[in-house]
Amino acid sequence: MNSAGSEVPWSQTWDQIDDDFDEHLEEVRNFLRCPTVSASDDDMLAGAEYVAGLIEGAGGTADIIPTSGHPAVLGRIEGDGPRLLRYGMYDVQPADEPGWSSPPFAAVTADVPGAGPSIVARGAANSKGSLASFLLALASARRVSDLPAEILFLVDGEEELGSPNLPRVMHDRRADLAAEAAFDMDLTADRRSVAEVYLGCKGIVSFVLSCSGGEWGGPIERALHSSEGVVISSPAWSLVRALSALKDAAGRNAIDGLGPASVPQEDERLLDALVRDFDPAAHLEEVGALAYLGPNDAHSVLKDLMYEPALNLNGFSAGSVTGKTIVPHEARAALDLRIPYGTDVESVVAGIERIVAEAAPEVLVEGVQLCPPSRTTANSPVAHAMVESQRDVGPPPQVWPSAPWWAPFYLFEQVLRLPFASGGAGHAGRAHAADEYATIAGLRTHMRQSIAFLHHYARAARAES
Amino acid sequence: MNSAGSEVPWSQTWDQIDDDFDEHLEEVRNFLRCPTVSASDDDMLAGAEYVAGLIEGAGGTADIIPTSGHPAVLGRIEGDGPRLLRYGMYDVQPADEPGWSSPPFAAVTADVPGAGPSIVARGAANSKGSLASFLLALASARRVSDLPAEILFLVDGEEELGSPNLPRVMHDRRADLAAEAAFDMDLTADRRSVAEVYLGCKGIVSFVLSCSGGEWGGPIERALHSSEGVVISSPAWSLVRALSALKDAAGRNAIDGLGPASVPQEDERLLDALVRDFDPAAHLEEVGALAYLGPNDAHSVLKDLMYEPALNLNGFSAGSVTGKTIVPHEARAALDLRIPYGTDVESVVAGIERIVAEAAPEVLVEGVQLCPPSRTTANSPVAHAMVESQRDVGPPPQVWPSAPWWAPFYLFEQVLRLPFASGGAGHAGRAHAADEYATIAGLRTHMRQSIAFLHHYARAARAES
Repeated sequence: MNSAGSEVPWSQTWDQIDDDFDEHLEEVRNFLRCPTVSASDDDMLAGAEYVAGLIEGAGGTADIIPTSGHPAVLGRIEGDGPRLLRYGMYDVQPADEPGWSSPPFAAVTADVPGAGPSIVARGAANSKGSLASFLLALASARRVSDLPAEILFLVDGEEELGSPNLPRVMHDRRADLAAEAAFDMDLTADRRSVAEVYLGCKGIVSFVLSCSGGEWGGPIERALHSSEGVVISSPAWSLVRALSALKDAAGRNAIDGLGPASVPQEDERLLDALVRDFDPAAHLEEVGALAYLGPNDAHSVLKDLMYEPALNLNGFSAGSVTGKTIVPHEARAALDLRIPYGTDVESVVAGIERIVAEAAPEVLVEGVQLCPPSRTTANSPVAHAMVESQRDVGPPPQVWPSAPWWAPFYLFEQVLRLPFASGGAGHAGRAHAADEYATIAGLRTHMRQSIAFLHHYARAARAES
Repeated sequence: MNSAGSEVPWSQTWDQIDDDFDEHLEEVRNFLRCPTVSASDDDMLAGAEYVAGLIEGAGGTADIIPTSGHPAVLGRIEGDGPRLLRYGMYDVQPADEPGWSSPPFAAVTADVPGAGPSIVARGAANSKGSLASFLLALASARRVSDLPAEILFLVDGEEELGSPNLPRVMHDRRADLAAEAAFDMDLTADRRSVAEVYLGCKGIVSFVLSCSGGEWGGPIERALHSSEGVVISSPAWSLVRALSALKDAAGRNAIDGLGPASVPQEDERLLDALVRDFDPAAHLEEVGALAYLGPNDAHSVLKDLMYEPALNLNGFSAGSVTGKTIVPHEARAALDLRIPYGTDVESVVAGIERIVAEAAPEVLVEGVQLCPPSRTTANSPVAHAMVESQRDVGPPPQVWPSAPWWAPFYLFEQVLRLPFASGGAGHAGRAHAADEYATIAGLRTHMRQSIAFLHHYARAARAES
């Protein structure tokens, strides 16, 4: 925590957060104990109700919005100042991977080596920990005084599915979402407490390739003894052919609408600043790898993370890998293509379908989901407030023109046409992996920053008017 | 059953088989109730002991031969005539596939549609049903008179694993295996009672391709969020690259030592005879497919089944196919390459390793098993006796120069240098699949044929000497 500590106008609020912190921590843990895996049949309504309860606990009001999938939550907390829209999510990734040292929904506190005392749970890092922290900080703040801004909430229960129903919710409730700016928050700080601010994010085209025996050939209904594989086609080989053709095209940026990485002129200064502070060796260690795929200088790595499209094979499955000599009757692969801002998403999808149809017409392209990229300007008050509030609680943050990951920021930027920024102090780790965690110190820092952010925004807005 | 019925010199033995049949059937069922899955940790010694007991029950002697894997059984039953070596197996495939209408080791009797009253069990068709039937037939025969031949037995407990320890057993006990000829028997008849005789079999090179993150790149220890996939290599894509290169080379017969199908001149007449009786539509229905991979005329299909090499992808596995946007840290595929007689197996293995090393050096070729092909001449007395004995109990059999599948026949043909034939009357089905069965009528026919086979061989040997 830097010198801003006791001087700031909201130091009384910070003291209140400290007073309430033990209680807040239990509340965060309870929220993490709701299994809200959107890809499963968990009780997502209970998760939505928990979010609504947290909003109401901070003195606000909340509606649970049914969708054709999992419900969203729309809320409002009064304040004396500009109106801001906070996006959030209450769903989490599946937690069925091996390697958890405690049950993923037990939310135990444990010492994470190198990070310190933490809550270990699916969703601790991504993103229930920060959502609860933000709301609990507002609850503390309101015990001391009015909030310096009015906060609207739009909380999705399907972000890990690509937010398929959020556009509809936004369309239907557009009038309730009128605001000056929008933002999202996460526990983005690394182990040095250096946090990040994002001005946008990459997009994703996700899809499944599948192939089963049928009129075209291959065994139908059941696997075949592989002695017959010389005369009967193999759905698994068809899938390999389609995958190989797609990878080849993606590697050459030869999928329609895909181009090689290019850095917009306005981003060059931001990229240079990031490069100065980026340690490729530390990044490799953090992601759990020993070598980069391409050049290992900071500039190349960051440029690729933000601007280079990439086709990822999330997994594949067919038959048996433990010694059954069979020709499987079905095969399946899941992929995602990460795309930079400016990509023509529809062309990319058409390009994928064409390549697969040419390489292996018996392979189906299914479950295509479009998650468009997003981008807002570095000069907006909301980005400024995010940077300043992070400075209040730690070292100066890094400003990323684009996050390498996806979130439904485009809906705020392109549909609601609001300036948008994302960021957040506090350290967490292992999102989407076993032993996902948020440090306890990080949660407290995040609560403090949440309040500072509102004050910085309100001050900037007042100065402008 | 044809006219040979009551006229043959061994008709008294056949009557004895009929008298003993109900008892024999219970014995077959009991043998099938021993779970002898060589790929699991079943009690394989109990299976070996059961085989030894069946040999002793026919008045013979048996040794259980320990190996570094599962034991083999070596046995001997006296007879007044030439000495023959019967190969057999007591291990079976795993029975963990779905679709069993009764437990796979319950060995219930049930009416199989289109086949009639049958024993349903893993191993009923492949190959415990025929092994037990042969031994029980000998027991009946010895109640009536001496056997017309002395029979040695070498029974493997690891055929479904590629018989890795059988060469050692054969080497160590070579003196005990001296014989004029060797043979194997199965319930090979189709639903028309047309049985098959095999003069050899294709070989297999089986192996696993695996790739994990390491010094070369890729995530180590755990999967990575796929937003990092643009800068971190993917073991799953490496595996696809290796698979694609191998498939391409195999398709062009460009793996060292692989050539396109060619029919030896001596086989042309046999192939023509098979073609006349082969119904591609019925074959497709039997294997459970709607179309062939290549030409669908009987000649092409049979030529490919017997002489064309083929690379089969038994299965692959990596990451998640249900919506986790990750880069998996490991990927695995199992393959088998079916090779015709005359293939240089060592060259093929070296070729596979070279192609993988060139396409994706980070992919390992592991668990390579060589299962050499085998071939003996159609003019041998043992093949002749197999054909004649099958004629005695049903329509003329089909003589296949090579089986499309593998069995360790090469050990008899190339190590012991014995003429070898394989065949057998009686209908069974669904080997390696759910609801594997042997018809009860087929088991009785198989017992009758077993005795006839010995007499035919002994008569031919006497005529020659």
